[in-house]
Amino acid sequence: MSNDRLIYLPLGGAGEIGMNAYVYGYGAPGKERLIVVDLGVTFPEMEGSPGVDLIFADVEWLEERADRIDGIFITHAHEDHVGAVGHLWSRLRAPVYAREFTAHHAKRKMEEQGQNPDNVTVIPPWPQTMTAGPFKLGFVPISHSIPESSGLVIDTPAGRLVHTGDFKLDPTPLVGEPFDAVMWGEIGASGVKALICDSTNVFSPNPGRSEASLGPEITKLIQAQDGMVVATTFASNVARVKTLAEAGVAAGRSVCLLGRAMRRMIEASVETGVLTDFPTVVSPEEATSIPRGNLMLIVTGSQGERRAASASLSRGKYLGLTMAEGDMFLFSSKTIPGNERGVIRIMNAFSEMGVDVVDDSDGLYHVSGHANRPDLEQMHELIKPQMLVAMHGEHRHLRAHKALGEARGIPGVVAPNGTMVDLTGDRPVVAEYVEAGRTYLDGSVQIGALDGVVRDRIRMALNGHVLVTLIIEDDEPLGEPWVELRGLPETGSSNAPLAEVMEEDLSQFLGRAKRKTLADDDKLEDELKQIARKVAQDEIGKKPEVTVVISRLTA
Amino acid sequence: MSNDRLIYLPLGGAGEIGMNAYVYGYGAPGKERLIVVDLGVTFPEMEGSPGVDLIFADVEWLEERADRIDGIFITHAHEDHVGAVGHLWSRLRAPVYAREFTAHHAKRKMEEQGQNPDNVTVIPPWPQTMTAGPFKLGFVPISHSIPESSGLVIDTPAGRLVHTGDFKLDPTPLVGEPFDAVMWGEIGASGVKALICDSTNVFSPNPGRSEASLGPEITKLIQAQDGMVVATTFASNVARVKTLAEAGVAAGRSVCLLGRAMRRMIEASVETGVLTDFPTVVSPEEATSIPRGNLMLIVTGSQGERRAASASLSRGKYLGLTMAEGDMFLFSSKTIPGNERGVIRIMNAFSEMGVDVVDDSDGLYHVSGHANRPDLEQMHELIKPQMLVAMHGEHRHLRAHKALGEARGIPGVVAPNGTMVDLTGDRPVVAEYVEAGRTYLDGSVQIGALDGVVRDRIRMALNGHVLVTLIIEDDEPLGEPWVELRGLPETGSSNAPLAEVMEEDLSQFLGRAKRKTLADDDKLEDELKQIARKVAQDEIGKKPEVTVVISRLTA
Repeated sequence: MSNDRLIYLPLGGAGEIGMNAYVYGYGAPGKERLIVVDLGVTFPEMEGSPGVDLIFADVEWLEERADRIDGIFITHAHEDHVGAVGHLWSRLRAPVYAREFTAHHAKRKMEEQGQNPDNVTVIPPWPQTMTAGPFKLGFVPISHSIPESSGLVIDTPAGRLVHTGDFKLDPTPLVGEPFDAVMWGEIGASGVKALICDSTNVFSPNPGRSEASLGPEITKLIQAQDGMVVATTFASNVARVKTLAEAGVAAGRSVCLLGRAMRRMIEASVETGVLTDFPTVVSPEEATSIPRGNLMLIVTGSQGERRAASASLSRGKYLGLTMAEGDMFLFSSKTIPGNERGVIRIMNAFSEMGVDVVDDSDGLYHVSGHANRPDLEQMHELIKPQMLVAMHGEHRHLRAHKALGEARGIPGVVAPNGTMVDLTGDRPVVAEYVEAGRTYLDGSVQIGALDGVVRDRIRMALNGHVLVTLIIEDDEPLGEPWVELRGLPETGSSNAPLAEVMEEDLSQFLGRAKRKTLADDDKLEDELKQIARKVAQDEIGKKPEVTVVISRLTA
Repeated sequence: MSNDRLIYLPLGGAGEIGMNAYVYGYGAPGKERLIVVDLGVTFPEMEGSPGVDLIFADVEWLEERADRIDGIFITHAHEDHVGAVGHLWSRLRAPVYAREFTAHHAKRKMEEQGQNPDNVTVIPPWPQTMTAGPFKLGFVPISHSIPESSGLVIDTPAGRLVHTGDFKLDPTPLVGEPFDAVMWGEIGASGVKALICDSTNVFSPNPGRSEASLGPEITKLIQAQDGMVVATTFASNVARVKTLAEAGVAAGRSVCLLGRAMRRMIEASVETGVLTDFPTVVSPEEATSIPRGNLMLIVTGSQGERRAASASLSRGKYLGLTMAEGDMFLFSSKTIPGNERGVIRIMNAFSEMGVDVVDDSDGLYHVSGHANRPDLEQMHELIKPQMLVAMHGEHRHLRAHKALGEARGIPGVVAPNGTMVDLTGDRPVVAEYVEAGRTYLDGSVQIGALDGVVRDRIRMALNGHVLVTLIIEDDEPLGEPWVELRGLPETGSSNAPLAEVMEEDLSQFLGRAKRKTLADDDKLEDELKQIARKVAQDEIGKKPEVTVVISRLTA
């Protein structure tokens, strides 16, 4: 009898929101054929990853098994699902599959990293399917906040898996396919082994609202304005951009798109046919000569990103356009936890200009792209899976989602990144734990999150940096040690320059030091470090990072 | 005729939430006698102020006029109102006045910074008043989220000012005085020149709820639990701590307070008589031997602070106590914008332990300490001021609050930190702008926010740090330059160690360099920096901070 097994292994996206990367495998234990679903990024922040450019899942486990990967499947074109394809592809070298709009973005990601975009193949939607090793897969249209989002139906020798990707139940999404409950019901009716399901909004108690509910409210809001209207949302939320643009036009305004991502996303949508009737827009240059009361800008930067159009406008001029008293700025978006400071900074800058800021606190101008708790229950009911794997969420979301399924009698599992789950039997069983970490793109180099580079940067930021240089000739100090400070106050409690106080104490030590100490670089460095730190503690109440450079001369 | 004027000058707290510091003055322009209301702190964060310990208003303007300060008045004992008293007192040296509970904290702040606590005088509440220079002041009890909060009635030769401090309209605050609308109405009835009013919750559209509304809900929640119950709130919210403790006792549990601030605040409340009937508590040691189902902990750390009891419990054991599957953790608090990441980190850590986390998303377990929009309108109505100064809030709050007053015909002003407003006439007039910045407490040293120390730390965090050392003897390099890296990847695109590639390029440059360059420290340093940065850009795609140390020997 076969001991082949069906496994699920999240390497990113489970136990966090971001950098999605899921692995499925089928075959003899340790020899499974593998597929990868999504390769996304997470964005760095000053607190934990200062100076880092992008973060993605550590794919070392996959890289070691690259010869067993039969394909990389991208569910949709959000950065946290497709953003790492170009960066990680050379380590995995498997064919990439996606629907047309998503493939358009995946190809660009490949090109930007010098990879051949022909490695990305466009797959038509369900009911079409394709084969990859022991898997038969279909991209099933599902509503979300970007065009052509797809769930995956993955038929395996051990049964059918349904991987939802990110989704909501929207019968009127405006752009992209409506949620088709009948089709999903049919997919479920053939018997589903496991539902691997988005958990993001499990704490939202009310049914999700449709994209179509926003248009009338936004139009009303714009019509009430006399000055210029500026609205921001995620560039990839093409339906929202369209809603905003149409509301602007309905209110008699010319519409201008600002921000590279915004223009690129709309162009890609038109090019791939997902967007057919977007209002005519004017260029930023044309916009400068249109009366404020007749103009609407739709701009990037809903999360307060420093370089986006919103932040630029909040600091002053952007492409010749400026905000002025009496204008309105609309956040048609939700602030992602952690981005509050940046968003509030922009709100206050606009307030200083006399601009009225409207956000979603009334719940009228934004809807989420993820399924809320009752919607998740509906999905469970449609698919009727044998087991539930809570996916795409922080640990608390996964845990609550598992409990939601179990309340309906569906056995579930909380499997954070690195948890390999065996789906072969009647219920999910944790098979093993795999090392799953983060890879930082730092400039042009990929480094491990735990290899110390970023830790050292954080330490310098918290503690400052002291440089001690010393020349030693024939085991005797030549001249005095030299101290340079970086990121430290110049003067401390003794009112003398901190560097001089340090040099003085270091010199005294060197005068007393035995020849044996002076001859031993490690020991000497260690002693000098301790002295520098002690002086700093006494003078400024802080223990800085210290780097000692000893140059040895021989006469 | 006198040209004396009445001025208002916020140095902190206006245009931000935190580090409150307000100045009032009366007298001939430039010779006004001054009083200070509140001297609070703001807390640093990694993004803008890494390594900083505390932030307070820059009081240089006040320090230069210290001989004209007739008193420092503290409205209540929150850190953002009293926290800087000890740190700044030696620069101002004016008597400090507060009610008893607040004075208790102010005295401790003085002692902690080596100042004489006798400089703090306890003032009984309104209708008692005291004189300070041209001002007659009374501390008027007002409800907030800490005992003995007070507004100030400030009678001046130019008319009466009402400075609300932080407040809400709570008829049943449980601890401390209820809001007394009759008394405030009487204060308003004598004619008020200006209402200087808390703006924090101007965007909250519904009337605020009373502290008393929480008890029944929290009791119900605790009664439904089988495991240990842990709840967190601000330690200074003594009424809430009492509500939580009483709910625990009502549910048949022993109550234990964890966290130094929590115990200290309750002790101070009992000592100063503001808290008379707090339930008996058990020590952490006793708690370890109480069955989980009979135990409730009330702990510090509602904002996710890394060193507080909540965060410690989320990482493992704290004073012998641990969380376990089936326990419940209640955030009886609101997350202050910017603290989301820390709070979510704790929530997920508890989720991993199988602990159920309950927060205030249902609106049942927390009420705000600030007046909402309708409450502000009620205050305007009670006081009927000639003019409104929006205080205590970010710029957007101040602006909306001014608009709220103007909608009722009260002329107002948005005066962010540094805006001196002349209140003498019929309406507020901006008189001048004063330099108003931030002072960082960095270890034991006070530094200016803009003096470059913290900027250098941020740069090292973002870019890493390269140290280049070079010995020059008689204008010729002695040996090779030496490179040390800190916070940078060791290897870049050429697969050779980055430090070695840099040393190689630096050496080549030195070989080519003219004697004139080698003799000029500034020029040489600049050239070496440029080369090191260029190599880094080529190798790792990043331009680091570079420090060059040149040691010159003469033979």
